[in-house]
Order: sequence, then structure tokens, then C-alpha cells
Amino acid sequence: MSDQFLFQEEMERVVNRLSEPDSYEAVYHRNIHHDVHMPSVEELTLAVELLRSVIFPGYFLNAEIRTDTMKYYTGSALDRSFRIFSEQIKRGFCFSCCQSDKDGNHCITEAEDISRELLSRVPYIREMAASDAAAAFNGDPAAKSVGEAIFCYPSVRALTSHRIAHELYKLQVPLIPRIISESAHSETGLDIHPGATIGKNCFIDHATGTVIGETSIIGENVRIYQGVTLGSKSFPMDEDGNPIKGVPRHPIVEDNVVIYAGATILGRVTIGEGAEIGGNVWLTRSVAPGTKILQRRPMEKGFENGTGI
Amino acid sequence: MSDQFLFQEEMERVVNRLSEPDSYEAVYHRNIHHDVHMPSVEELTLAVELLRSVIFPGYFLNAEIRTDTMKYYTGSALDRSFRIFSEQIKRGFCFSCCQSDKDGNHCITEAEDISRELLSRVPYIREMAASDAAAAFNGDPAAKSVGEAIFCYPSVRALTSHRIAHELYKLQVPLIPRIISESAHSETGLDIHPGATIGKNCFIDHATGTVIGETSIIGENVRIYQGVTLGSKSFPMDEDGNPIKGVPRHPIVEDNVVIYAGATILGRVTIGEGAEIGGNVWLTRSVAPGTKILQRRPMEKGFENGTGI
Amino acid sequence: MSDQFLFQEEMERVVNRLSEPDSYEAVYHRNIHHDVHMPSVEELTLAVELLRSVIFPGYFLNAEIRTDTMKYYTGSALDRSFRIFSEQIKRGFCFSCCQSDKDGNHCITEAEDISRELLSRVPYIREMAASDAAAAFNGDPAAKSVGEAIFCYPSVRALTSHRIAHELYKLQVPLIPRIISESAHSETGLDIHPGATIGKNCFIDHATGTVIGETSIIGENVRIYQGVTLGSKSFPMDEDGNPIKGVPRHPIVEDNVVIYAGATILGRVTIGEGAEIGGNVWLTRSVAPGTKILQRRPMEKGFENGTGI
Amino acid sequence: MSDQFLFQEEMERVVNRLSEPDSYEAVYHRNIHHDVHMPSVEELTLAVELLRSVIFPGYFLNAEIRTDTMKYYTGSALDRSFRIFSEQIKRGFCFSCCQSDKDGNHCITEAEDISRELLSRVPYIREMAASDAAAAFNGDPAAKSVGEAIFCYPSVRALTSHRIAHELYKLQVPLIPRIISESAHSETGLDIHPGATIGKNCFIDHATGTVIGETSIIGENVRIYQGVTLGSKSFPMDEDGNPIKGVPRHPIVEDNVVIYAGATILGRVTIGEGAEIGGNVWLTRSVAPGTKILQRRPMEKGFENGTGI
Amino acid sequence: MSDQFLFQEEMERVVNRLSEPDSYEAVYHRNIHHDVHMPSVEELTLAVELLRSVIFPGYFLNAEIRTDTMKYYTGSALDRSFRIFSEQIKRGFCFSCCQSDKDGNHCITEAEDISRELLSRVPYIREMAASDAAAAFNGDPAAKSVGEAIFCYPSVRALTSHRIAHELYKLQVPLIPRIISESAHSETGLDIHPGATIGKNCFIDHATGTVIGETSIIGENVRIYQGVTLGSKSFPMDEDGNPIKGVPRHPIVEDNVVIYAGATILGRVTIGEGAEIGGNVWLTRSVAPGTKILQRRPMEKGFENGTGI
Amino acid sequence: MSDQFLFQEEMERVVNRLSEPDSYEAVYHRNIHHDVHMPSVEELTLAVELLRSVIFPGYFLNAEIRTDTMKYYTGSALDRSFRIFSEQIKRGFCFSCCQSDKDGNHCITEAEDISRELLSRVPYIREMAASDAAAAFNGDPAAKSVGEAIFCYPSVRALTSHRIAHELYKLQVPLIPRIISESAHSETGLDIHPGATIGKNCFIDHATGTVIGETSIIGENVRIYQGVTLGSKSFPMDEDGNPIKGVPRHPIVEDNVVIYAGATILGRVTIGEGAEIGGNVWLTRSVAPGTKILQRRPMEKGFENGTGI
Repeated sequence: MSDQFLFQEEMERVVNRLSEPDSYEAVYHRNIHHDVHMPSVEELTLAVELLRSVIFPGYFLNAEIRTDTMKYYTGSALDRSFRIFSEQIKRGFCFSCCQSDKDGNHCITEAEDISRELLSRVPYIREMAASDAAAAFNGDPAAKSVGEAIFCYPSVRALTSHRIAHELYKLQVPLIPRIISESAHSETGLDIHPGATIGKNCFIDHATGTVIGETSIIGENVRIYQGVTLGSKSFPMDEDGNPIKGVPRHPIVEDNVVIYAGATILGRVTIGEGAEIGGNVWLTRSVAPGTKILQRRPMEKGFENGTGI
Repeated sequence: MSDQFLFQEEMERVVNRLSEPDSYEAVYHRNIHHDVHMPSVEELTLAVELLRSVIFPGYFLNAEIRTDTMKYYTGSALDRSFRIFSEQIKRGFCFSCCQSDKDGNHCITEAEDISRELLSRVPYIREMAASDAAAAFNGDPAAKSVGEAIFCYPSVRALTSHRIAHELYKLQVPLIPRIISESAHSETGLDIHPGATIGKNCFIDHATGTVIGETSIIGENVRIYQGVTLGSKSFPMDEDGNPIKGVPRHPIVEDNVVIYAGATILGRVTIGEGAEIGGNVWLTRSVAPGTKILQRRPMEKGFENGTGI
Repeated sequence: MSDQFLFQEEMERVVNRLSEPDSYEAVYHRNIHHDVHMPSVEELTLAVELLRSVIFPGYFLNAEIRTDTMKYYTGSALDRSFRIFSEQIKRGFCFSCCQSDKDGNHCITEAEDISRELLSRVPYIREMAASDAAAAFNGDPAAKSVGEAIFCYPSVRALTSHRIAHELYKLQVPLIPRIISESAHSETGLDIHPGATIGKNCFIDHATGTVIGETSIIGENVRIYQGVTLGSKSFPMDEDGNPIKGVPRHPIVEDNVVIYAGATILGRVTIGEGAEIGGNVWLTRSVAPGTKILQRRPMEKGFENGTGI
Repeated sequence: MSDQFLFQEEMERVVNRLSEPDSYEAVYHRNIHHDVHMPSVEELTLAVELLRSVIFPGYFLNAEIRTDTMKYYTGSALDRSFRIFSEQIKRGFCFSCCQSDKDGNHCITEAEDISRELLSRVPYIREMAASDAAAAFNGDPAAKSVGEAIFCYPSVRALTSHRIAHELYKLQVPLIPRIISESAHSETGLDIHPGATIGKNCFIDHATGTVIGETSIIGENVRIYQGVTLGSKSFPMDEDGNPIKGVPRHPIVEDNVVIYAGATILGRVTIGEGAEIGGNVWLTRSVAPGTKILQRRPMEKGFENGTGI
Repeated sequence: MSDQFLFQEEMERVVNRLSEPDSYEAVYHRNIHHDVHMPSVEELTLAVELLRSVIFPGYFLNAEIRTDTMKYYTGSALDRSFRIFSEQIKRGFCFSCCQSDKDGNHCITEAEDISRELLSRVPYIREMAASDAAAAFNGDPAAKSVGEAIFCYPSVRALTSHRIAHELYKLQVPLIPRIISESAHSETGLDIHPGATIGKNCFIDHATGTVIGETSIIGENVRIYQGVTLGSKSFPMDEDGNPIKGVPRHPIVEDNVVIYAGATILGRVTIGEGAEIGGNVWLTRSVAPGTKILQRRPMEKGFENGTGI
Repeated sequence: MSDQFLFQEEMERVVNRLSEPDSYEAVYHRNIHHDVHMPSVEELTLAVELLRSVIFPGYFLNAEIRTDTMKYYTGSALDRSFRIFSEQIKRGFCFSCCQSDKDGNHCITEAEDISRELLSRVPYIREMAASDAAAAFNGDPAAKSVGEAIFCYPSVRALTSHRIAHELYKLQVPLIPRIISESAHSETGLDIHPGATIGKNCFIDHATGTVIGETSIIGENVRIYQGVTLGSKSFPMDEDGNPIKGVPRHPIVEDNVVIYAGATILGRVTIGEGAEIGGNVWLTRSVAPGTKILQRRPMEKGFENGTGI
């Protein structure tokens, strides 16, 4: 009873504290346009799933698509998807850059143009995603069919999301591509920044822990395994000691390269066409085409009955 | 307004393009049996959760199970679970191999037999899962009780799913075991192929990024940490340059082995009984029983004020 | 038809087997207090999300918070959150330690005190979480705004959950902190034990596969990358060969340290202030302040056309 | 504690009793086809809502339909709706009449033919439903637009459901039409048996409590108010004293009739064209065209201060 | 903008007003036991549906019940149902009468005893409900099977809920029976007070608008139609002009009576065995057994072209 | 197989037909503002429930409201409720009258002003709703507490919704009030047009089938029973034979009147203060204050063994 009373007193004290500007000002999101909401992760997830159902008809959402009803399902799913994208792209703009454009009309117009442009690229996105599914089937002896790869491989799932997010990134939409990427990252453990440029027929086996940085450029027919990092070696700071944003700082990986599990490649280096980078290799320099890099392993120490590790 | 019109024109153009056979043929799933649906990830997730609630009574779904009502809850959850499994196994067959058996009766009969066989193995699956929970408690100083391990350890969760998926794999059910595995992979970051054979008392601490390949064989009382790969060194190609499916190509890990974080073991090698493989070790050869393998580390370079890494 | 009959027979046999005490006794959770339920992962997730919405007002759950309505939303979300926490903390106690206190009143009283204490720490938790968001923005050239970091960075999400879980851990609540951590682990791939002590301005980029052990102590302004392990080197066993729980066994990382991807630091060693630990470095010894550790790399072997890897 | 024990004993006793054939045989539904489920009220509700969204485009489910995307939305909603109808019609047959046709193929074929026939009648159903909406707007001074009538008038909602159910009734589908009617009855309080024949431009104002029996025939432009009964006067019994099913026994209401609130019309009588039946009138005989029937009211008794009623 | 400001001011004013005791005191529910919640309509609905699935096995929730698994489904559904009932009955007591019993233990004990007693009556409730389903089939020429009556007749649905609620009423549980009744009332339009005593084989056709008052007593084999009132003629007031609660004031309807649509029977009168009460009859006196009461109708006035009604 | 083909052909034919303008033009809702959606019944239901939780604190949605947290819950629920109302009121305007105001700004401004005005009336709405709850308790001998009336009486539920809808009606919001009314009508069977003016302390017992027309005026302390109609006798037509909208045409019921079940009162008549209208009375004339109207009943005909009714 008196506990209950103490709880109430504490509640009031804490609420008052949390409502003071110096407590919340660093973490409070204030929308300029009071009728434009925050981007919605749920809505974006739905828009991406609708697009996935269009790209791979019959696999997701509507298993009943037949060739003669494909137009109906494609049309209605695309229309729903792009209504959501239009709204969410607008919200992304308002979240990030509307501060100088208080009536919001600019954002809205831009959002519609971008949405239409994204729409026009869906056939291309399907081509790329189809190539990734084929690459997964061809690249994994455990894959029993292309369908299995489409249906449940994290590589195909994350790359399809990436290919959507990347088009939005190229169209300079703020925030939204990153939300799409992080959602795929959370699901698959594969962290591809939406800025990364990835050619067709890409396969990332097992996927968990692989990181592909913002300015990476990956060619065609590249195969990558789990735990690979395509990262930056260091990044330039501005005068205030803050990182300068947007500088090319991640690797270029040319066509037909294979990168085995746990390899780390840092900086704006080029891995030449057809090269193979062995597992756990640490690379901060460019590699000529056709080279196979295998880390010279130190001897292992073996004990019959070591006292610890 | 005219934007809206442009959008509509574009929509029609894109829908038409996506509905052309040369656009969709590589990615369209066409069910032969028009009354058999695609496997449902949601239904399979429910069936696995029902089974998990049977295996660990009182932890999941029905916290109110008492010893005197155990039979009721066990019976109804098992019955529901196996109705779902029967249906989903049938869908798995139709997805993968019904193309030569157009009336589907063969698939249906087989699905029922397999489902019954899986049912008969549930007591065995519980034994194995119970041993994994005990191994987690015994193997992690941070674990406070076996119950905690059952309730929230990713190792126990993923291994229980694996033990179910593995029985289906052994019964040669297509696709379904992989869906179960990938679902556990997505949740826990632990990627165990349903083909892997794993003995009792297995514990995989932290789990994220560990990959256990299709033909791996793991003995009893094995402890593995995060980021470990039991992979294939290379895989034989057929005449067309495609990987040959199903060849034994992953490690054999004998009883009582410990494999520390980040270790990579590749190929059909044998890690002998009681061996310990140190963190980040890279192994492509067999190791005798009782050996402790510790990678001979290169010296580290230390700078007072290095100019960058 | 006879299949159906066989199925039924098998079902009965299996249900009976699973209901025998020797089958279930190792895996059955028996609540002492028949009116206290198992902790609910869903309820805890909701409580944490409510708290997250209070900590970062406007980002989660209620995007419409304005400064003049902040008190209302803060008050109602906090009240709901703490009603859930009170109940779940009680359940955590009953799950773990009520066996010696059969009327449960002790648990209930303690749960309320702890809940009130947690409440009083929310302003502090917000300060810490705000510093982590700022650290993410400052530490990642790909971050476009602090808001983006709050909204979708796994580092900020997992650290906020950790900071809540850690307070509960310090208040000696059983099980509940671990459920919160594992939930964040599942979502982000970042495994921070609730026991770990982490100073302000922490940033863990990409996050997947990083593991921070129970007794780790991390200072302020520390930056960590993916795949890093702060682990124990070994752990002492008691006379029965079981690990002794609770011994300090993980690293101390002082202020301003940077640890690059894939580094492994094991044991109760100290990484001195301002040190930088290079990628994939393996460390089992202490490092002086200001030191930059870079693993001396072995030469890579390069072949023009090697026949394998 | 002993209460708990008593509860358990009682539970076992009751479960055993309820599982004895003489307890359950009168109320147990036994499916002959073990792979055909019970009809699903939820699925049928969805199929009807999908059809409603097709009939009144832009009002329900997909507010975003434009004339240029109408084909897509219409096609995909119709296809989804008719897949559900096919399945549910099959279940309806199996529920009611499959007992003499154990392989179920007969049911399945019939279900598909009927489903296709229903499909072909959708344009007609829309015409009828559109006329009902217009009649509601014209018949109610409180209606502000046809759109309002479509969006929220119970008359339009229940009649649209009826027009669907009635086509299924005419196609001799068992059970399913009745489920659709009862669902509309529950929502609107308007109980129209699916067997009733209703002409176009029908309006039933307020609707609650109005009952229209199985063999009723209603002409065009009929207006009916709440609490009206079109019932049977009596029904013939067979030799065993059970009612003979299917005999015409409800009124015929010709074109342009108005029936005011609370009127009761019983038996196979005919209300001639243009007649008006006053409120609370009790009628068991036919009425000539153009007649206005007003019950001759008894005098009311009025007291200044009556001692009760 | 200034609108927004006005809105905020108004919001604050209104919140303050609504939070003043003189505004809320008449409408605020204050729980004495701060850990006992309000009864939950959703939970009670679930408990009733679980019981309905037990009473009519195979119709609701679990269509897959077979005779050999009936025990499992019956046991688990009953157990879940009675856990909910125990909790909700306790909440009902606390809502209504705990004010004199502040520790709540009395309520809790009573709730368990009552819950066990209700459990013991489930076989009896099934018998009654089965008889109602048979009565519906026999009493309605439009009913095609007993199954149809069970599956979708409002009479069977509301009477089953009533038979559950009535047992709780007899056990003097406050509030809970009324919530169950009102839920059935909302669904079916049939308002049976939980206090009403109803014999077996009851059928209430169409059901909408029929009201059966608290102290009504209905015999066996009674058939009632829509819009019937079994009400009180007047009720005695206490000295303060408030109605005295609980006095017998509704009709007694003996076995084999039929009451046609719209009849109104008021007061503690007796309708003798086998009597038939015609439609719209208004009765405030007793009727001898076997009597058929038909209101002597006034002549109807018929006009060829009346000028209005 | 050929069936499937026939189905597809039919589908295409039907889709094409339904997409022709002459098929859809009468039933298609075309939004002028392509970014303003249809009103959402779900959202309005939520807004009304939020308001109900504010009006009756502790009964709905948030049972945990205490006096000291009332301000938080009241403030956040009100704010959420009014954000929804603002949006939905705007949609209501756009649905109905935006055709002459294509930029929509007019609608938006008006919606905000109205929303603020509604907000300011919430304390008044609570007063009225509180009086209705008290009237239910005082008017029904079966009511055990005011709380029971608030929690589950259809009268209180429908009247609270009505009091909200009526304020919107007075503020000339189109469509939205009617949606709220119809939602309450569907739940309770009580059809109160939002235009009806109802004084405080109103109780409508049992409620099913009672209809209160648009221009009705009801005084204070009025008690009404089920099946009562306050309707219009006839309504004037314009030159085209369409009803003229908005003319006063329903009864005026003065203070302290009681109207018993099934009574029908039609036209702009006045029921004087304190009058009592007996059950099933049919009234089309005014009644002086204090009068008790009891229909002079015809004799009933009684037969010992009538041959039918």
C-alpha cells in the first residue's frame, strides 16, 4: 500500500523529469509537417513483400497466380506497393530534409516522380533477382532447385531487398533505403548498405555476418561466403574530427571473383576479375585478375594434453 | 494531375512487361496440382512450435500443463502438429518432385507414412533436445538453470528445430526441412543444414555466424562457439561446371570435441575424440584424438601512435 | 484408411510415452505457485518497446508526440510499461527462486521494489541511450542523421535494450534480463550479456556476430565492429567438473578504445585507454593505453591459376 | 491445494464422461472425407467481402481503385474470392451430402462447376445491388447520398450478401448460403433466408427484426421497414409429426408494395402490386393490387393518473 | 498553425477538467485489489468458445477431432476454458463485492469452488444444448440437418451461451453471466437474461428482438419466435422510488407451449402446458393448459387509393 | 482440366464486363483528392473506443487507471482519439462535399476546427453518458450496480456512441456520425439516428429493434423499451417524387415519459411530460402530459383444441 504510494510519487517525478526539454531535446523527433507521419517500418515491409510477390510470382503472398491471371495479380500488387512507396518516400524526405521547405509540396512532388521512376525499374529488378536465384542454385551443392533458393535462401531474400533499396538510394531517397536494408539485415544477418553496387548473378552463401559497405562495387557472377567484410580501411575526418560522409572507401570486386568465409577486404582496393580470396584472408591491397590468394598459414601447435588454450 | 496520368501509363507498361512469359518464366512457380498449395512458412512455424511445446512441456504455448493434464495437452498439440506436418510434407513433395506423378496420390500417401514415422520419433527427439538443454547449462557459466537454457538460449532453440528438420531430411522430404532450418537460422543466426548429423549433448554458445554444412557428422558432448564454420573445402563439378549434389564434403567431429569461436574446419576431415580446436584456427586436415590445436600466433605489432590501420 | 488407423495407434503410443515421468522429468517446468505464470516474451517485448518509445519520443509507437503532450504520452506509456515489468519481474523470481518461499509474497514485494527502482533510473537510461545514438552518428560516415541512427541502427536498438536489461541485472532479477538480451540478439545478431557494464557513447557498427560476455567492463566512447568477441579464456570448474558461475572472466576495455571487426579478446585482460585493436587480432593479454595493435600478417600466397584453395 | 486436487479429479471425470459415445453421439460432426475440413465462417466472410469490394469498387478493401486500375483489382479480388468459394462450396457438399459418395470427386467437380456459374452471375449481382443502393437513397429522407447508403446502410449490406447467397441457393449448394445469411443477420439484425426471391430496387429501412422466409417472393421496388415478418402461417407435418421441408409457405409481394414497421404477413398469400400494408398490420389473406391496408385501431384508453399498466 | 496552438490549449483544458474528481467520480471504476483486473470480455468469449467446442465436438475451433482423439481435445480445451473461468469469476467477485474483503482470498477460494462446480455440470450443459439443436431441426422446415442448426442457428448459439451463463448465475457469480449473455445478445439479437430458467428442447426461431426476463421459467419443448417479450408488467419500488431487485416478475411458460412472433406476455402469469399464443398477442393474465390464444383482430381498413397512412 | 480452362475464360469475360463504365458507374466511388482516403470504419471505431475509455475511466482499454495517473491516460487517449477524428472528419467532408473545392484545403481547415470543438464538448458528453448509466441502474431491477450498466448494457453503449455522433451531426459533419451510429446499431440492435436530440438520464432497456428517427426530440429521464419506433408518418415528396430531406417529421417526447415495448409513435407529435405509452400502442397523435395510454385490447379468442392459427 505505501509501496504503491511510493511508486506513484516516483512515477510523477520521473515523468516530469523526462518531459523537461534538457532531458528530451537530443532524442526527440519533431516533425515539421504536422500531417506527415514518421516512416513506417511495417508499411515498408509490406511494400517490399508485395514487390517480392510480383518479382517471384507464385512464391509469396499469392500462390494461386496462373499465367492467365498474372496480369491481375501483378497489377493490383504493384499498385498497392507503389501507393505505399509514394507515401513512405514522402515521409523519408520529410524526416530528413524538409526543414527548408515548410509547405511540403516539394517533397510530395519529388516523391511521386521517384516512385514512378522506381516503378519503371521493376522489370530490371526482376531480371537481377532472377539471376541471383540462379546463382544460388548453381553455387550451392546443397540447393535442390532454383525454387528452393527463391523460397528460403537468405541470399536471395536479402539481395532482392537490396536491389529495391539500391534503386531508391540511387534516386537519392533519404532513410527509406536504409530501413529496407536493416530489415533484411535483421532477418538474414547479411548487412548490405543500400549504396553498394552489385552486378547480376550474385550469391552470398550462409550470409550471416557478411558486411558490404556503402561504396562497394561488385561485378557479375561473384560468390561470397559468410563472415566476409568489404569495409573501409579508415575514413577521412573533417576539421572537427567528424567523419566526412560519402567518400569512396570500400573495395571494387570485379566479375567472377570468389571470396571465402571470414575474409576481410578493406579500403578502395580492386580485386581483379576471376580472383579467388581464401577464407579469413586479410587484404588491404589490390589483387590482379585471376590471382588466387591464400593466406600462408602459421603452423598449428598441437599438444597431447595442453593445460589450456 | 499529369503526374498521376504518367504514373498510370507507366503502371500499364510495367504490368504488361512483367506479364510476358520471357520476363517471368525463370521466376514463376507453377503448381502442377492446382489444388495443392505452396508450403506455408507460417504453418510450418506453428507445427514446430507445437512440437516444441510438447518436447518442453510448460515452457511454450501452454504454461499451465500439470502432470495430470499432460496427456491432454500432449495429445491435442501433437495431433494438431501432425495434421500440419502431413499437409506441408505433401506440399513439399508436390513442390519438388510431383512433376512425374500428376495425380498427386503418390505424394499424399508418402506424406502420411512419413508423418507417422516422424510422430514415432518424437520421444527420441525429446531425449536429444533434453540433452542439449543440459549441455547448455553445464557448458555456460552464465547459465543459471536448465530452465533458462530451454526458455531462451539460441542453441537449444536452433538445435531443437534442427533435430526435427533432420528427421524429415532423413525421411527424404524435400524443401520442408530446409524451411525449418532457415527459419531457425533467421531467428538465431545459427545455420545448421538439416542434413547434418549431430549427437546428443550438443551446445553451441552465442551461436551467431556458426555454419554447419549438409554432410557434417558431429559426435556426442561437443561444444562449439560462435562464428565456427564446418564447411566444404571445395566441391566436385560435373561436366557442365555445376556442383555435384550430395557428396560427403564436410568434417566429422568426434565425441567430446570443443571448437572455439571463429574456427574454420573445411573438407571431409576428422577431428578426433576429445580434441580442442582453438579460436580462429583454420584447419583443412584431420586431427588426432586428444590433440589441442592452437594456432601459432604471429607477433602483434604495437605502435605508440600508429598512423592508421 | 488403414494408414489412418495406424496413425491413431501410433499417436496413442507416443502420447503415453511422452506422458511418462521418466520421459518428461528433465524438461518439464513445474510452477510452484499455481497462479503465477511463466514469464511472457511477448509482454516483455511490449514493455521494452513502450520504454523505448519513452526514451526516444516521437520515433516509436506514438509518432504524434508534441512537446505539449509529451507528459501525457510519457506518463501513460511509462505506467503501462511498469505494470508489465512488475508482473514479469515477479514471474522471473517465481521461475527461478521461489522454491523456498511458497506463498510468493516475498517475490511480489521484491518485484514491486525493483520495479520502482528501475523506474527511477529511466532518465539515466535515456541519457545513456542518447549518447549511444550520438556515437553512432559520429562514428559512421554512412549515417546521415542522429535520427537515422535512432530509427534503424542495430547498435542503438540493442544497446538500448541492454541498458534496460543491465539495470535489471544489477537489481538481481533472474531470467528477465536474459530474455530481453536474447530478444535483442535475435533481432540484431549482437549478443550482449545483461551483466556487461558499458559506458556512455558506445557504438557497435554492423553488430552481427559481436559477443560481449557477462563480466565485461567497457568504458566511455568505445567503438566496436562486427564479429568481435569479448570472451573468457577458460573458466574454472568446481569439484564436479561444472563451471563455477559468476567469476570475473571477460576483458576490461577502457575509454576511447576502438576494436575492429573480427578481433577476439579473451580473459580478464585490460585494453588501456585509447588503444586500437586491429581487425581479426587475437588477444589474450593486456594492452597499454594508447597502443595500436595490428596483427603482423603472414605473406599471402598468390597463384596465377591455383588448382584449389 | 486440496482444491486443486479436487479440481483435477473432477476434470478427469468430466473428460471421461464427455468422451463416451452416448454423451457425444448426438452432437459430434464426423467428416467422411478426412482431408476435407468444415466450412469456415471466416473464409466465407472474406470471400463475400472480396466480392462486395468488386461489386462496389472503391468502397471496401481497396479504396484506391481508379478506372485505369479497375481491371487489376477486379481480377485479383474475383480470383481470390472464387478460389475460396470453390473450396467452401466443396466443404458444404461434404458436410451435407457426401455420405453416399466416399471418394469426394463428385463433390469437387460439382463445386467447380457451381463456382464458375456463380462467377458468371457477378455482373448481374452488381446490377441488383446497385439498384438496392439507389432504392435506399430514394427511400430514406435521412440518406444524404447513394454513397452513404452503400457505405453504411444495413439494408444494402444485407441485401448484397443475400443476393450472393441466393444464387448459391438456386445452385443447390447446401449450408454455405445459410452461413452467409446468418452472418449478415448477426451484423444487421435482418434475417433473409437465402431461398427468398427478391426483385431489384429493394429497400429495408432500419432492418432490425425483419424476417423474410425461405419461399417468399418479392417483386421490384418494394420498400419494407423494421420488424416486418414475411412468415409461414403453419407448416404441414409428415406422418412422424416432423415438418415437411421445402413447401411454398411464405407470402408473394408484388412490385411497388410498401410494408410498414411491425407488419406481419403469414402464409402463401399475395400482396398485389402497389399495395401498402400499414404498421403492425396482421395479415393472413391476400390483398388486391393498389389497396392500402390500415388496421382499424381500437380506441386508446387514457387516464390522467392510471395506477399501472 | 495557430489552429494547432488553439487545439493544444483546448486539450490541456479538457484533460484537466476530466481529471477533476467531480467530473469522474460517478463513472470511474476503482479496483480495491490493485492486482486484480477488470473482467475481460475477450477472455470470457474465448472461454465460452472453448466450451462450445467441447459441447459440439468437430464444429468449432478443432474440426479435426476424431473419436480416438476426443479425449485429448476435450481435456485440453476444458482445462484452458476453466483456467479462464476461474480467473474471470474471481474478477467478477472483485468487481462487485470485494469491498468488504480486502485481501481477496475469500473471492479467490470461492472462484475456484464455483469453477469446479461449473466444470462438473458440463455434461449436463451438453445434454441441454444437444436437445436445443434437435429442437431447432425439428421445429424449422428450412433446417436441412441438425448439423446446420448447430453450425449457424442463432437460437442454438444463444441458448448454449445461456445455459453456461445460467449455471454461473445459479452459483451466484456476479457480472460474469451478464457479460456472457450480452455478448450473445449482441451477436444474435436474442436477449435472454442469465437468470431465466429454460427447459430442454427449446427453439427460438429467427430470434431477433426476443427478450426473456430474469425470473422467467420456461418448460420443455417450448417453441418461441422472433420479437417475443417475456417481461414484467411492473415492478415494485422501495421507499426511495428505486426498483426492488430480484422479485419474481416474469412469466412461467409450461411444457410444449408455442409462442408466435411479436407476442408480449407480461407479469408472473402462467402459460399452461401445450398452450399456443398467437402472433402479436398481448397477454397479462394466465392461460389454461391446451388453450390456443389468437387475438381477435380488428377489421382492416382497405382503400383503393388512400391518401396516406 | 478443361473445367479449369472454362473457369479462366469466364473469369476474363466477367472481369472485362465489370470494368466497363456502364457496369460500374452507378456504384464506383471516385475520390476527387487522390491523397485523401475513404473514411475508415476501423479507425472511427478505435477513436470512439478511446473516447469511451476516457469517459468511463477504468472500464475500457486501460483498466489500470488510478486517480493519480488519470491525467496521463486521459491526455494520451484524448490526443490519439482526436488525431483520428481530425483525419476521419476530413475524409467525411471529402467523401461528401469536396466536389466544389478541389484543393481540399477548405475541408482540412474545417475538419480541424470541428475536431477542436468536439474536444471541448467531451466533459459534457461524459456528464450525459454518466446520467444514462445511472438511469440504466435505476430503471432496471435486474441491474446490480452502475458499473454493470457501464460495462455491458447495450443502452449505455449505444447512447454513448450516439452522444458522440450527435455532436458531430450538430457540427454538420457528413457521413461520419452515421458510420458511428450504424456501428452501434450493428452491435446493439438499437438504431438511433445521429440527428436525434436526447436529454439526460435516458434508458432504453433491452434495446433490440428500437428505432429513433433523425428529427426526434427526447427530453430528460425518459425510459424506452425494446421494439419501439419513433418514426415519421409520411414524408413530403418534391416535384420529382423524391423525399425532401431534413424536414422535422419525428415525435417530440417530453421529460419523464415511459414508452413500453413495441409501441409505435409516428409523425411530429408531442408526448407530453410524464406520459406513459403502453406496449404495442400505435400512436399518430399528440398526448397530453401525465396521460397513460393503454391500447384497449380486443378480446382474445381461446380454443380448447384449435385446428391452426
